[in-house]
Amino acid sequence: MDNFEASESKMNGADRLCDVLLTNDVEVCFANPGTSEMHFVAALDRKPQMRCVLGLFEGVVTAAADGYARMAEKPAATLLHLGPGLANGLANLHNAKRARTPMINIVGDHASYHLQHDAPLTSDIESLARPMSHWVGRVEGPEDVGRATAEAYKAAMSLPGIATLILPADAAWGEVASSAVEQTKVPTPTTAPEEALGAAVAAIRSGGRTALLLTGRALRADALEIAGRIADATGVRLLAQMSNGRIERGIGRVPVTKVPYPVDEAVAALRDIDNLILIGAKVPVAFFAYPGKPGRLIRDDCEVIEFARPGDDLRNELARLAEELGVRPDAPAPVVQYGTGLDYPRSGQLTADAITLAVAALMPEKAIICDEAVTSGRRFFNLSQRSAPHDYIQLTGGAIGIGIPLAIGAAVACPDRKVIGLQADGSGMYTVQGLWTQARENLDIVTIIFANRSYAILQGEMRNVGVNNFGHNARRMLNIDDPALDWVSMANGMGVEAGRAETIEDFLNLFRGALARRGPFLIEAVI
Amino acid sequence: MDNFEASESKMNGADRLCDVLLTNDVEVCFANPGTSEMHFVAALDRKPQMRCVLGLFEGVVTAAADGYARMAEKPAATLLHLGPGLANGLANLHNAKRARTPMINIVGDHASYHLQHDAPLTSDIESLARPMSHWVGRVEGPEDVGRATAEAYKAAMSLPGIATLILPADAAWGEVASSAVEQTKVPTPTTAPEEALGAAVAAIRSGGRTALLLTGRALRADALEIAGRIADATGVRLLAQMSNGRIERGIGRVPVTKVPYPVDEAVAALRDIDNLILIGAKVPVAFFAYPGKPGRLIRDDCEVIEFARPGDDLRNELARLAEELGVRPDAPAPVVQYGTGLDYPRSGQLTADAITLAVAALMPEKAIICDEAVTSGRRFFNLSQRSAPHDYIQLTGGAIGIGIPLAIGAAVACPDRKVIGLQADGSGMYTVQGLWTQARENLDIVTIIFANRSYAILQGEMRNVGVNNFGHNARRMLNIDDPALDWVSMANGMGVEAGRAETIEDFLNLFRGALARRGPFLIEAVI
Repeated sequence: MDNFEASESKMNGADRLCDVLLTNDVEVCFANPGTSEMHFVAALDRKPQMRCVLGLFEGVVTAAADGYARMAEKPAATLLHLGPGLANGLANLHNAKRARTPMINIVGDHASYHLQHDAPLTSDIESLARPMSHWVGRVEGPEDVGRATAEAYKAAMSLPGIATLILPADAAWGEVASSAVEQTKVPTPTTAPEEALGAAVAAIRSGGRTALLLTGRALRADALEIAGRIADATGVRLLAQMSNGRIERGIGRVPVTKVPYPVDEAVAALRDIDNLILIGAKVPVAFFAYPGKPGRLIRDDCEVIEFARPGDDLRNELARLAEELGVRPDAPAPVVQYGTGLDYPRSGQLTADAITLAVAALMPEKAIICDEAVTSGRRFFNLSQRSAPHDYIQLTGGAIGIGIPLAIGAAVACPDRKVIGLQADGSGMYTVQGLWTQARENLDIVTIIFANRSYAILQGEMRNVGVNNFGHNARRMLNIDDPALDWVSMANGMGVEAGRAETIEDFLNLFRGALARRGPFLIEAVI
Repeated sequence: MDNFEASESKMNGADRLCDVLLTNDVEVCFANPGTSEMHFVAALDRKPQMRCVLGLFEGVVTAAADGYARMAEKPAATLLHLGPGLANGLANLHNAKRARTPMINIVGDHASYHLQHDAPLTSDIESLARPMSHWVGRVEGPEDVGRATAEAYKAAMSLPGIATLILPADAAWGEVASSAVEQTKVPTPTTAPEEALGAAVAAIRSGGRTALLLTGRALRADALEIAGRIADATGVRLLAQMSNGRIERGIGRVPVTKVPYPVDEAVAALRDIDNLILIGAKVPVAFFAYPGKPGRLIRDDCEVIEFARPGDDLRNELARLAEELGVRPDAPAPVVQYGTGLDYPRSGQLTADAITLAVAALMPEKAIICDEAVTSGRRFFNLSQRSAPHDYIQLTGGAIGIGIPLAIGAAVACPDRKVIGLQADGSGMYTVQGLWTQARENLDIVTIIFANRSYAILQGEMRNVGVNNFGHNARRMLNIDDPALDWVSMANGMGVEAGRAETIEDFLNLFRGALARRGPFLIEAVI
């Protein structure tokens, strides 16, 4: 207990908020505060056990909290400044919501009695928060802070998902009676209904071609081992959603295939499935609609069994399914075996595939791959199936600009592991400010920029809509080559050492060097 | 009419949308498109008369559209990618909304029939749009595009303000009958009621101390001249709101004082006012609430007369008021006279004031000052009252990150005028990507970074809440000096030439050089 807490008369709502977070082991706060949050900042200043990490833009803050929780398996808090501060963080909250990442956003607001004046920074925070939150609440006064913060924590943990709590300045600065804070009780995860279990078993035993579609907690090594034993024993296929919060993979882990992004490839991959059993996942749908192409990617007559839901304990549900199927828990799981090292090109022209192969071959054990490589990285997942054991975290909701800050959060959560960011250049510019936080916190991150100097995915999509010869306006909207971005200068400007690779030799030198040192490093890979 | 329009069979909703915009003289589109907007991009590609300006982040896009409309006196369009793309642009939409800038946001959405699938990028766009828009609409199908776009234009022009139109992909790609597009009729501005006019006249004649509180169109040179004649003839004071979209000022213009930002200063400035007549403005309130300080900044017994409202023609309302008061329209207006040049320090330590004085003294005629200098620029407005005639546009809604892109829009609107950005470093990092667009479009902008390497405003606010000795967490959230941002490297990395000034001599050399050339230049002023 620090000195301040001992002084009963001086405790305020913001202190109580910090206490509830810390008591629940929420010990990292990614922040970009403003005037209305000054009492909260002052309270945090009295709690050195809370680690405060500044982002120079709120999109950095929310994606960092996302990356942190994916790896730490517990939520971080964020501190955001009124409606506009929240708004700046929304795109990456959208991604975190789609990953079902637990997160507690504290959004400051004007003092409750000040709202009537419609001061310049006033806005409808609830309306902004709801689309990208699973839970939204507003503190009703200083004495309500404890209850409201506990509710937010409970929502973040149990849904799991995004809890956004609006904290009026007068609730933060108002005095509260000093009292001990208890750990918040979180409901135990739900259990899939017996009928759903029965339906899953029946589908697997039906003789039809059946797949388990996995996401969330079901993609951790221990859950995948159970799924792998079920696959070995029954012949079901294992599939992961197109995008997932985190996958444990590589040598020693049960491999899983992802549903592909391009519609035609996805339809082909799912065409032979008669029964699809959802394990926390959703029926695969096209990322976008295209004239004449399907929205649902499975066959119309494919039977869908929603077995385990996002709020269920997915590992436990897989264990129930295995037991019901008579799969022995001590059977060996079909994990990737140690083999000869992966091959990769040693010289020549630098391409996205060459980088992908080199990263797959050279990444150290327990690396954390942050994938926002978009078109350039599409083959990484398949090429790294036999890499050293690693975690794979990725863009989940399609809102670009997650990569650089997602790596921040992962590195804060796992300071002893190497984080490798696979980063498209167009997406990277969205939250380029995150490089500064990587430097400030001296985080062990190698960021590889796939510098193709275009929105390559959109150039492909333009061709999909039948435009092959781009005119002036299309070129001005889909190319980012004029002027070319100098990522080395930008990184250096934010305190991150960097190098440019134009050949495979350059890249290998820089990448090996980055792996051999600690701290942030950026490689601009010109492809 | 271009070749494509001549081919009836190939016209789609997106083409119609472009036609409605172009027919209404909306000829600039600030854009960051995505897959769901590809048909719109293809349509823009068929309309070379539309100037498409790419921003590498949507906060750049919306602030650029704001700066453009403030100077061009007509709206630009923006092109944003679904909910997350809109979300990224919201903070600067908030600023534009507070400035009542006319703007037409086109937000792409999934094809209407695809929404049911809740694909990863799906979100409640209306809920996100409403807090930062004056008008929100959704296109109901290809044949509805013409009506909906005209409505959006009408709303943007007449409120005036932010119109956000959601364009489902299938409305964009669906065929429409080719037909001529007519110019959209915009309602004439409203007129203040006679009783309000009478009340304003009575207040001015009451013998009490009366002030006109001006904003919006009332702060252009011609409207200010009328206000100045009223002031000369009747003794009323002229005040501008704390934040305004645009003020024409300097030599030859009627000077006006702004309501100060610090609460105590504002209260002091407004203390002696008995009658406050609003000309498009709102009653001055504190930007934030502070314990024990007032929210409304005028005296409780100050009589408020809401004479002209934001939708009125404010120049015309001032003319009505002058006429009713018997003020002669040919009387000389009390404009700032040419005098001896302004003085400024020529050597020594670089400070915010030294920069301010140099800019005030050296700015060329017709310069456009974009002010997001926050604490460092607080004295600029008063010190530049006698500068060369110039426009002053500023952060309006308190959502930081407007400056760099606001300058983009102003420069696109006024290619023959020098734009000078006064930019705080912390705020500048929010939309630092805008420097790339400045380079790409070769815009004539000098950006002066006030590099104090801290959130100085927040350090002041922490002292306001009684914290004078910052601990570890407060320092980690309020200082941005570790590592120091190297703005020269960042600017160079985005194609903008730059130099660093550590003394007044350095600064004057760089600033004079930047004024003498065309194209973007950035000065990192270390203060």
